[in-house]
Amino acid sequence: MATGAAVAAAAPHVATASGSGMVEEQQAAGVGILLQISMLVLSFVLGHILRRRKFYYLPEASGSLLIGMIVGGLANISNTQKSTRRWFNFREDFFLLFLLPPIIFQSGFNLAPKPFFSNFGAIITFAILGTFIASIVTGILVYLGGLVYIVYRLPLVECMMFGALVSATDPVTVLSIFQELGIDTNLYALVFGESVLNDAVAISLYRAMASMRTHPSRQNFFLVILRFLENFVGSMSSGIGVGLISALLFKYAALDVDNLHNLESCLFVLFPYFSYMLAEGIGLSGIVSILFTGIVMKRYTFSNLSEDSQRFTARLFHLLSSLAEAFVFIYMGFDIAMERQSWSHIGFIFFSVIFILLARAANVFSCAYILNLARPPHCQIPKQYQQALWYSGLRGAMAFALALQSVHDLPDGHGETIFTATTSIVVLTVLLIGGSTGTMLEALQVVGDSNRYQHLYEENSDGNDNGYIGPNYDEGASTSSKFRSKLRDLRRSTSSFALLDKNYLTPIFTSRNGYGNDDDVGSPSEELTMSRGPGAVEGHE
Amino acid sequence: MATGAAVAAAAPHVATASGSGMVEEQQAAGVGILLQISMLVLSFVLGHILRRRKFYYLPEASGSLLIGMIVGGLANISNTQKSTRRWFNFREDFFLLFLLPPIIFQSGFNLAPKPFFSNFGAIITFAILGTFIASIVTGILVYLGGLVYIVYRLPLVECMMFGALVSATDPVTVLSIFQELGIDTNLYALVFGESVLNDAVAISLYRAMASMRTHPSRQNFFLVILRFLENFVGSMSSGIGVGLISALLFKYAALDVDNLHNLESCLFVLFPYFSYMLAEGIGLSGIVSILFTGIVMKRYTFSNLSEDSQRFTARLFHLLSSLAEAFVFIYMGFDIAMERQSWSHIGFIFFSVIFILLARAANVFSCAYILNLARPPHCQIPKQYQQALWYSGLRGAMAFALALQSVHDLPDGHGETIFTATTSIVVLTVLLIGGSTGTMLEALQVVGDSNRYQHLYEENSDGNDNGYIGPNYDEGASTSSKFRSKLRDLRRSTSSFALLDKNYLTPIFTSRNGYGNDDDVGSPSEELTMSRGPGAVEGHE
Repeated sequence: MATGAAVAAAAPHVATASGSGMVEEQQAAGVGILLQISMLVLSFVLGHILRRRKFYYLPEASGSLLIGMIVGGLANISNTQKSTRRWFNFREDFFLLFLLPPIIFQSGFNLAPKPFFSNFGAIITFAILGTFIASIVTGILVYLGGLVYIVYRLPLVECMMFGALVSATDPVTVLSIFQELGIDTNLYALVFGESVLNDAVAISLYRAMASMRTHPSRQNFFLVILRFLENFVGSMSSGIGVGLISALLFKYAALDVDNLHNLESCLFVLFPYFSYMLAEGIGLSGIVSILFTGIVMKRYTFSNLSEDSQRFTARLFHLLSSLAEAFVFIYMGFDIAMERQSWSHIGFIFFSVIFILLARAANVFSCAYILNLARPPHCQIPKQYQQALWYSGLRGAMAFALALQSVHDLPDGHGETIFTATTSIVVLTVLLIGGSTGTMLEALQVVGDSNRYQHLYEENSDGNDNGYIGPNYDEGASTSSKFRSKLRDLRRSTSSFALLDKNYLTPIFTSRNGYGNDDDVGSPSEELTMSRGPGAVEGHE
Repeated sequence: MATGAAVAAAAPHVATASGSGMVEEQQAAGVGILLQISMLVLSFVLGHILRRRKFYYLPEASGSLLIGMIVGGLANISNTQKSTRRWFNFREDFFLLFLLPPIIFQSGFNLAPKPFFSNFGAIITFAILGTFIASIVTGILVYLGGLVYIVYRLPLVECMMFGALVSATDPVTVLSIFQELGIDTNLYALVFGESVLNDAVAISLYRAMASMRTHPSRQNFFLVILRFLENFVGSMSSGIGVGLISALLFKYAALDVDNLHNLESCLFVLFPYFSYMLAEGIGLSGIVSILFTGIVMKRYTFSNLSEDSQRFTARLFHLLSSLAEAFVFIYMGFDIAMERQSWSHIGFIFFSVIFILLARAANVFSCAYILNLARPPHCQIPKQYQQALWYSGLRGAMAFALALQSVHDLPDGHGETIFTATTSIVVLTVLLIGGSTGTMLEALQVVGDSNRYQHLYEENSDGNDNGYIGPNYDEGASTSSKFRSKLRDLRRSTSSFALLDKNYLTPIFTSRNGYGNDDDVGSPSEELTMSRGPGAVEGHE
């Protein structure tokens, strides 16, 4: 609730409207919101129908984008009132503060921790190192293209900004198809983890480059990297901290009795947002923070809730993120149709599409090479997975939001060119990659039963409880180089986390033993508490 | 989700901030929202503790108001950054578009329809006629006070605007105490219905007066009343219409199968908002519309949902309205502490407090007199109920929002005086009336077992299924005047609604017979449908 409030508070100009002006203002708002709700309903219904017919060429996100673009185009033609139109301008701050948090939190909340943490090293490598590589490769290619006059010429730092913003991949569309098709959890974890974390990397890089541009004295590359790592570790810690505090609160406040369910869920819902805003407020990355809060809250806090509230909050977060996801694409589509585009540099658009494909290849294949050096033979990332990872790099709302930002940050013409190029990339990748992911995954044979790698991957983990991390690392160490063994030492440290979790974290932060809702939810004592009933004033209906 | 988006879209000035400006902007937003969330958490925890200790002198709303005022005062002293502060300016349009709808919808959704509809005539009388009376009495008293120099002198039309805005009573605080104490449902329905509907009346009257002020040609009093009635009936019909459409959609779309729960609740959640925005968009009253949508959706649509979604949506609406309620008072308190008040007219404030008490007495006692003429002897509204109704007229966010609006609508000085007077009335009534309602209700003996009237009221209804409406009206008709019998004819028409509902509406708009979740939810056939699981997507119905 605080959410919209706050954003609204940032719009003081409406308050200065006169009496009858206010009535018109409100009517325009009504029409604008009505249109948005109708598009949301349309997009849900369309998505439902297409899914039911197993038509995978138009995923929900693509559908929402198209709906937004079509309605936006119609509104453009029909010369809609300016006051209504204003409700559709894509606003970066609104996107970052209110649409992104529920999506990212739900990603963390809904995450299967095992494949995520067992691939944590790989995910971090792809997300941080890989995004660095992709940004720089894109930036340099665009700069070189400018030098040889095949594209519009931009200064190097602006090329780097473009490289950074266009390296943010979108988690929504591809992952929903992955889920639908039932893909290997390891590949899923890789794609998911990379696309979530690289948003944070891209935004930090973009901001670092932007501040470099305005303050040339800060042009120390290593300082940028250092500051970025500081930011990342800080955000992660603050997110984990908030998550653990919420776990303790719910463990000791004893809110899981019948008539306090509403209070319980109110508090539970406020924590993720608290984590996001805390991080943003102290200048860290809200995205990273809320992602880890989501992971921690699901693992520890969630099992301290009453059974009823568990069901409720899980559905609530799912609902919020579905609404936010659909809305992001509608909102973006509408804005694309409304915004003035600058089509004078078709060459720039054409070549930047090629450049980002190359840059993503440089990211995925080089990182995978390094990772495979560190991994024991049976845990290698197969070529097919690398190709799937390369293919699933579609660009979405984050790239769009940063490109819109660049229009304000850069001198006349430069920002507009970058914006139009990014818009084109977003529309192309969402429609083409989004529509063909299903076909591609089937061609790569990583779907469902046809996935021979999943089999291989899992059999080799020797029934070890932590997936394929654990004692069976050392076997290959004798033949590896010094570099390899160092990398493996690094990896091994993650396996001790499972022990730490089992012996310390779970007993400290949860009121039940074990892993939450599988274990003793619905036990007799619980049932007794739940059914005390009528005396409770606020009991749920 | 669309909500905040839209409001945010109304704030284009942030988008023009420069690159590093944007980072600071976002940091300020983070701090602002963080503060808001912390206050929300504090208010929930405080409210919980006080309720647990059965301390009724500081209801949750008063607590939230105080928290807002204290934190706002501290922020004022500590000279907080302007960019953070801006997140706390109370914005009327944000309040009307995003905070009010969930509160009003939940009121309608959570309403016991029987006492509401059996008292519908009385509620409408208090809300429409009574609020007219109260507005005009307040306006005239203030004007006369100005003529004899005991208060600041305002033109008549501005006095009427003040009368209208200050006649909006707040449903939140008093009703939560009523619920807590377990008061007679008829008294509850009267207070509830009046306070919800009179918001709509007050806002319409205020706007009518404001447009009269700027366009003196429209000063036709009967035209104003006619336009108001048009507006009211139109809004009610549009709200009922949207509700019935949603019922049909959920009856025939067959979304109540296991794997479509998310889609089901997404659509269900969007409807109330759709109704509100539809009404606002076509220039009607969103509040009235969403109230009736809530009533209709609970009665018909709700029983077409799957059992799981029923539980979920009921909790969701409760959660949203709790958050909105707490936030409204915090937000208002903070703004009161931050806004510049004009204390130069203490006399105006002092006398306006007295005037509103008189005006409310004129409203309640005269309307009750008329109603008692129309009601048969055993259904009279007892004196104690009238006193309780008079007492429970505390002023809240609606009056505050309109007063803030008047600062922009009226010439220098006038608006500020009205605003400060209204602020004082809000704070006084929320703290004093809110804190003493429990004591007052006990003194009037209308609480729980000590309520002798409830007994009387119900015994006389002769076990008739529709409460105290129905065949037993005619007995007193022979002795009554012609006017009385006409009024009773009017009342009798409501009793036929129960028949209409039972024979036509329920079978047409719900997929189950009977009244929804009491009847056959969880029946064997239902259980079967629910557990068919994944294969059930297409087979249902």
